[in-house]
Amino acid sequence: MLDVYAFATPNSVKVPIALEELELPYALHGVNVRKGEQKTPEFLRLNPNGKVPVLVDTDESGDPFVLTESAAILVYLAEKTGRLLPTSGEGRARVFEQLFFHASGLGPAFGQSGFFQRFAAEPQPLAIERFSAEANRTLRLLDGTLAKNDYVAGEAFTIADIAHFGWLWRRGFPNVTFDDTPNVARWYEAVESRPAVQRGIARVEALVPQD
Amino acid sequence: MLDVYAFATPNSVKVPIALEELELPYALHGVNVRKGEQKTPEFLRLNPNGKVPVLVDTDESGDPFVLTESAAILVYLAEKTGRLLPTSGEGRARVFEQLFFHASGLGPAFGQSGFFQRFAAEPQPLAIERFSAEANRTLRLLDGTLAKNDYVAGEAFTIADIAHFGWLWRRGFPNVTFDDTPNVARWYEAVESRPAVQRGIARVEALVPQD
Repeated sequence: MLDVYAFATPNSVKVPIALEELELPYALHGVNVRKGEQKTPEFLRLNPNGKVPVLVDTDESGDPFVLTESAAILVYLAEKTGRLLPTSGEGRARVFEQLFFHASGLGPAFGQSGFFQRFAAEPQPLAIERFSAEANRTLRLLDGTLAKNDYVAGEAFTIADIAHFGWLWRRGFPNVTFDDTPNVARWYEAVESRPAVQRGIARVEALVPQD
Repeated sequence: MLDVYAFATPNSVKVPIALEELELPYALHGVNVRKGEQKTPEFLRLNPNGKVPVLVDTDESGDPFVLTESAAILVYLAEKTGRLLPTSGEGRARVFEQLFFHASGLGPAFGQSGFFQRFAAEPQPLAIERFSAEANRTLRLLDGTLAKNDYVAGEAFTIADIAHFGWLWRRGFPNVTFDDTPNVARWYEAVESRPAVQRGIARVEALVPQD
């Protein structure tokens, strides 16, 4: 039994997309981060870091295994099913290279750029400049990779594509466009058109109250 | 044949430490980031991201395999040798959870906090406050984990300990101390006292020109 705690966020969406791609059934539980539900005592018992997504995998004995960090969840699901992650060789190393480039580079740059543009209590111009430049720099690096390969870690769709897709789906937050990155634009369209990706997006979007 | 391009930086040091722990011979090549050598055309051909460390694994046919991202290198070396990373189960997932928590959380917070305290051309007080708070928050989370386990991903030393050690070794950059995190302090002392860790540190420190 797989339970996913998530919302319509760049990191959350990765997990339902992976589960849809892997054809694994799951229950999706909304954690409304706009209302701060990720900081409630109840949620902090699940993830002391106060972040979505969280995966809970409960085996037949009823023992729940709680896992945080979206990319760690992607690796766990890929290894559980033997799919979306090569089992050896250069292709496998390229998936991890891209997962960590996303986790440490592109993802934080997009997140901080959006934060300083939208939410800082007072303008921090050098911080906006720094993270906006880094968001675009990391996007251009990804474009260079996608000029050589169909997908971010080679010629096959992997969990590394799902990881990058999460923040690129939310590129409006840091005001990033694909105007100067045609290879990213081509790749994004290919990933977004996958039926499983569309189902994963629809499921997290349905968590947002319409009022 | 393993070649490592590195300097005495938080991310670089992880790779020589892992190689020393795994008893793999390697050649270490200094890239003086204080002089900007990571931005030269020659280095950018190796890593377009302009960052150390880089691993080059050349097989008997002479074919070089170039890998970037320190944590991806740690996973590659652990899987190459079958050591420092459990091959299955909860312990394996915990290693990836900590690797990604380090890559996306603690590492960027330490790095940005140090940058805004030391290098920003004009003071950005809210940025300093934001990243300094996040550096200390992520350190307290790690302390909570180490209150339960001897090591960051359980009872055994793994590549996740090596990952966290890199930035904690350089905690002076963001002015972080272990005063309020006794479990981190105990763990740090245990890791730092490992002979292989000391050899790895000595090798990267020897790359810094003494003038």
